[in-house]
Amino acid sequence: METTPDKIEELVTGIAQRAREASFTLATLTDAQKNAALLTLADLLEEHTAALLTENSKDLAAAHALDLAGPMVERLTFTPERIAKMAQGVREVAALEDPVGAVLETIERPNGLLIEKVRVPIGVVGIIFESRPNVTIDCAVLCLKSGNAAILRGGKEAFHTNTALAGLIAQALEKNGISDGAVQIIPTTDRWALNALLKLDDLVHCIIPRGGESLIRFVAENSRIPVIKHYTGVCSVYVDKAADADLAESIVVNAKTQRVSVCNAAENLFVHKDVASTLLPRLAKALAEKNVELRVDPVADSFLKDVDTVPATEDDFYAEFLDYILAVKVVDSLEDGIANINKYGSGHSDAIVTTDEAAAKKFFAGVDSATVYWNASTRFTDGFEFGFGAEIGISTDRLHARGPMGLRELCTYKFVITGTGQVR
Amino acid sequence: METTPDKIEELVTGIAQRAREASFTLATLTDAQKNAALLTLADLLEEHTAALLTENSKDLAAAHALDLAGPMVERLTFTPERIAKMAQGVREVAALEDPVGAVLETIERPNGLLIEKVRVPIGVVGIIFESRPNVTIDCAVLCLKSGNAAILRGGKEAFHTNTALAGLIAQALEKNGISDGAVQIIPTTDRWALNALLKLDDLVHCIIPRGGESLIRFVAENSRIPVIKHYTGVCSVYVDKAADADLAESIVVNAKTQRVSVCNAAENLFVHKDVASTLLPRLAKALAEKNVELRVDPVADSFLKDVDTVPATEDDFYAEFLDYILAVKVVDSLEDGIANINKYGSGHSDAIVTTDEAAAKKFFAGVDSATVYWNASTRFTDGFEFGFGAEIGISTDRLHARGPMGLRELCTYKFVITGTGQVR
Repeated sequence: METTPDKIEELVTGIAQRAREASFTLATLTDAQKNAALLTLADLLEEHTAALLTENSKDLAAAHALDLAGPMVERLTFTPERIAKMAQGVREVAALEDPVGAVLETIERPNGLLIEKVRVPIGVVGIIFESRPNVTIDCAVLCLKSGNAAILRGGKEAFHTNTALAGLIAQALEKNGISDGAVQIIPTTDRWALNALLKLDDLVHCIIPRGGESLIRFVAENSRIPVIKHYTGVCSVYVDKAADADLAESIVVNAKTQRVSVCNAAENLFVHKDVASTLLPRLAKALAEKNVELRVDPVADSFLKDVDTVPATEDDFYAEFLDYILAVKVVDSLEDGIANINKYGSGHSDAIVTTDEAAAKKFFAGVDSATVYWNASTRFTDGFEFGFGAEIGISTDRLHARGPMGLRELCTYKFVITGTGQVR
Repeated sequence: METTPDKIEELVTGIAQRAREASFTLATLTDAQKNAALLTLADLLEEHTAALLTENSKDLAAAHALDLAGPMVERLTFTPERIAKMAQGVREVAALEDPVGAVLETIERPNGLLIEKVRVPIGVVGIIFESRPNVTIDCAVLCLKSGNAAILRGGKEAFHTNTALAGLIAQALEKNGISDGAVQIIPTTDRWALNALLKLDDLVHCIIPRGGESLIRFVAENSRIPVIKHYTGVCSVYVDKAADADLAESIVVNAKTQRVSVCNAAENLFVHKDVASTLLPRLAKALAEKNVELRVDPVADSFLKDVDTVPATEDDFYAEFLDYILAVKVVDSLEDGIANINKYGSGHSDAIVTTDEAAAKKFFAGVDSATVYWNASTRFTDGFEFGFGAEIGISTDRLHARGPMGLRELCTYKFVITGTGQVR
């Protein structure tokens, strides 16, 4: 493997050039051509289960030798079931509607020009991710279906598994007459490769980092290429004075505890002061039954004398706990609730529980988040739950894609203009 | 004025914080509220024509003292007519449809969740521009109409003019009860202010640099905030073997010569070899009448023995001449024409002249540009010509906005979800 920065830069530039070259053809493939390659890949994954497990076991041995944390090893581990599920996922993406070629808007101008805004692939997409090797297949498949050339850069913990997956992807492309530049995995985990990739703004059109905050921050600060960031979520539930008590309980408990390790789980609870005395004790009891630690402000504490609580610090309201912990505050009004969410939240997903439609509309307009809910759990922010059929992530950016990002969000548009000799 | 980097950083951070604060209210203003402020501004511009001319004359005196280039001084110069035109432009933006609040998509899920994708302002937009002070008003007005808080950073050549315009904008906001954080001009031309602004990714959501390539490149390389770039254009006309000769002549001449200094003017001409002998001499004659210098490849030259030409270098095909110069090459096929455009062009605007619909469709699919034309001049790539009513620029990026960027492209979306107690 190449080792000097110069050699690695040359290697990565070559990969990006092949991707760019492939992108021109990819943009013109029919849905049937793309699906054929996807179905071949699904079959290959199943046929090569044993080989994939062998390569994966090398990564697992290295992980154990390095004493990696349990959850990291868990994410890294392949099983026959996980491989079968991955193959099934590939078939499901093949079955989705081709996003490319749809006419999004038609403008007929007085001078007779017909302007059509047509959905097209972005071009070359670079995806930087960490340990989970199934992300390799997810990203390859979503990019191929949306007509993009993909450059994938996985974590070093999954190097052997990713290399094996790359081999199967290459086979699937070759068997279906698609350039091997369509999906490429950077065959080195050297940090220089990432630095080199992020400078290639002439060849690569979009970078999607998936992983921890430090990875995303590094990419955002060092990339000349536009980045779509997928930061984690500090989500809130606001219980309004006009909240239905049963709904409040089920939504708060679900948003906090149904799965604590995900970005759309609630981390903050804001309760209107008029219902704090009746609702807070009930919510606290229900959350205690799920072993949720409550970090409460002084006013909330005054309503929770019989409950074990922890005093909240200012930092607790900014925290993404990803754990059985909830920061709780009593607010003076709907406006105060909205202001708290805009101050502490990360603009991901926030919910109001209320029977008052006017309050809900104010919340919808005032909360500056990608997804705002009225009487539903924040846990629905997800490409599958939105009916997109797939997702490459949940964007916390505002440009291009916001919230769940599916096949359509992996596309841009071009203007296709038909004239009869018009000049200015 | 503040002078140390620390003080300037503090100043710029304060501006961004006020902008962020203002953005929450701006997002909820009605169209009528925004239009009232715009119409006040238009009146103020007219009422203060004399004062504006006085301030502008200070910038002009400084420009003359520095011996700035003629075109730069010309762009900097205010006249009563230009001020009246600017006021009229503000009234025209007020009359446009409010882009905010439109429901772009409605998804009803099997679980009863109603998901609406609603257009909302981006939030805080930073615009960095060079000498033309009318850009200050353009950008302020487009941001206000689209509900965005604007931070404007103009060139030092227009400092007095921009400061006077900022004063009128502040008056218009105040008279209409809108926070002065809605439109702010950075009151220093120190380079540190730009550096500081580009780091504030927690407060500013989008940066739009308008100006020369070096400015845009500096911003793109130094910004942690997503940037929408407006690079200039290397546009081409491809004359197919099935081209109508009259159409080819009028489109090539118009695309090259109607206004040579703009990004959507043609810089390259590719002619199919089958029609080179008949068409090239005719096109060359028509272009010569407009004093266009032809830089030709050897094959094209062989068809132009009776015409004054210059041998083209490889660099000529990459060049944005912005002048009466055209690079000319004979190509072997439609595919070769497409490949040449994708190689040398900047992905801005490209045209095919042909009577063959199949060739046009291949060109539409194969040319990887923001705007592709069939039998029309490239000069139509423009927000006004597209019927957007206004434009903040022409994006050469692929993410978020591609091609002409109007009020809608100054918006993002949020998902607004109505439930009846749904949990996962």
